[in-house]
Amino acid sequence: MILITNDDGVYSPGIVALYKAVSAVAKAHVVAPKGAQSSSGMSITFHRPLRISRVKQRNYEATAIVGTPADCVFLSVHKLFRNKIEMIVSGINIGENISMQSFFSSGTVSAAMSGSIIGIKSIAFSKAIESEDEYLTEREFRNAAWWAAKIVSYIRKRGFPAGVDLLNINFPVNVSRKTKFEITRMADEMFDDYVVEREDPRGNKYYWLAGTKKRKAEEGTDLKAVLMDGKISVTPISINSIQSAGTEDIERYFSSL
Amino acid sequence: MILITNDDGVYSPGIVALYKAVSAVAKAHVVAPKGAQSSSGMSITFHRPLRISRVKQRNYEATAIVGTPADCVFLSVHKLFRNKIEMIVSGINIGENISMQSFFSSGTVSAAMSGSIIGIKSIAFSKAIESEDEYLTEREFRNAAWWAAKIVSYIRKRGFPAGVDLLNINFPVNVSRKTKFEITRMADEMFDDYVVEREDPRGNKYYWLAGTKKRKAEEGTDLKAVLMDGKISVTPISINSIQSAGTEDIERYFSSL
Repeated sequence: MILITNDDGVYSPGIVALYKAVSAVAKAHVVAPKGAQSSSGMSITFHRPLRISRVKQRNYEATAIVGTPADCVFLSVHKLFRNKIEMIVSGINIGENISMQSFFSSGTVSAAMSGSIIGIKSIAFSKAIESEDEYLTEREFRNAAWWAAKIVSYIRKRGFPAGVDLLNINFPVNVSRKTKFEITRMADEMFDDYVVEREDPRGNKYYWLAGTKKRKAEEGTDLKAVLMDGKISVTPISINSIQSAGTEDIERYFSSL
Repeated sequence: MILITNDDGVYSPGIVALYKAVSAVAKAHVVAPKGAQSSSGMSITFHRPLRISRVKQRNYEATAIVGTPADCVFLSVHKLFRNKIEMIVSGINIGENISMQSFFSSGTVSAAMSGSIIGIKSIAFSKAIESEDEYLTEREFRNAAWWAAKIVSYIRKRGFPAGVDLLNINFPVNVSRKTKFEITRMADEMFDDYVVEREDPRGNKYYWLAGTKKRKAEEGTDLKAVLMDGKISVTPISINSIQSAGTEDIERYFSSL
């Protein structure tokens, strides 16, 4: 069974589109936060109990949890669908999750990663959008969801690629069924960061953290593929390569501490 | 200059002890959240302005920000200490940050990582404690802070170890100045997880997510070193090895998609 979750909440058009597409090719269940939980990272709620509720609409069923994406995975793995989850699919996020910065702060990626860590292979799907102020419908995610179902189906037939625990997949704004894809590595950052200093009417300083999306990026990065080249980016992540830098001489480096 | 931050807040005995020890061996500034920000991950506050205030006590000075640890790093790097930060030191966290799960959810590690990503080498320091309910003073962190200053000083002399961007360092409960240290990799998880199902007076189910610390761990992991062997654990992390799984045959795997 495929567990579908996200961080934009159970009613997000991204997850509805994903469920409809994936459930046509495999048995799937949605367990997702009741409301939006962006940037909640991989935190698990231990200090208060969690309640669940059912969402049922035409062609869409889901379990909603007042909690984080990691809570949804935890509860599904350890209780709701114990030993039944073959893959965790997270998304489709409203907005791309590109670069190391997103990798560590994205709820979509974290939900997937919290599966990978406990041995359940996972995929995070995100889609770049034109504007954050837009009202988005399932239509926006239709082609991305088509790709997601195709990818899930492809992977179920062959097994996850060797040595890979998580695939971070990002769709460009204008993704079609003919869009090319590229295997990428993450860029370091996706913003050119800066800070705006202001003064309030009483003369106290305050600061706006700000950033504009980078206009240049290295070849082979997710940033270049999605935002500059309009391709689908597939970044393979391996738990083992995160666990330790594996520099053989670090023991020697510290030997005289 | 060494930037010191944390996620337990500017008044935490862990950061006060760290500042006092490190500022004796190098120029150091504390920029930390005003209150506790645990598990806020690497999220950056873009939607509201940030205010800063000064904290001044005997032998301790700090800049407090109403924001996340990543906000503190962002504001310091891009505004307060532009081009002056040679290393970011985060902690000393109240409680260990061990295993992949902590790596992705810890505010202490995230603060350090948000420096590493933009090219500033960093160290996350955390200390295991006896009980979360205890009232802790600087005394608890004295030996850990002594080690932290020794390590910072050692690294400043030699430069960061090659290929390493972040060191995740954890002290055991009873750390002394004679405690042995070990270069480790992260364990996958540190808890044996489970879920407790309850029913409220109206007959509705609710759930407690729960976990007990693992009693067994693989040799060479941070978990084994700190919680079982009472050693100081030093886990080297490399940005490059996180960026991509680097499996040469992933292109081939997807070639017939």
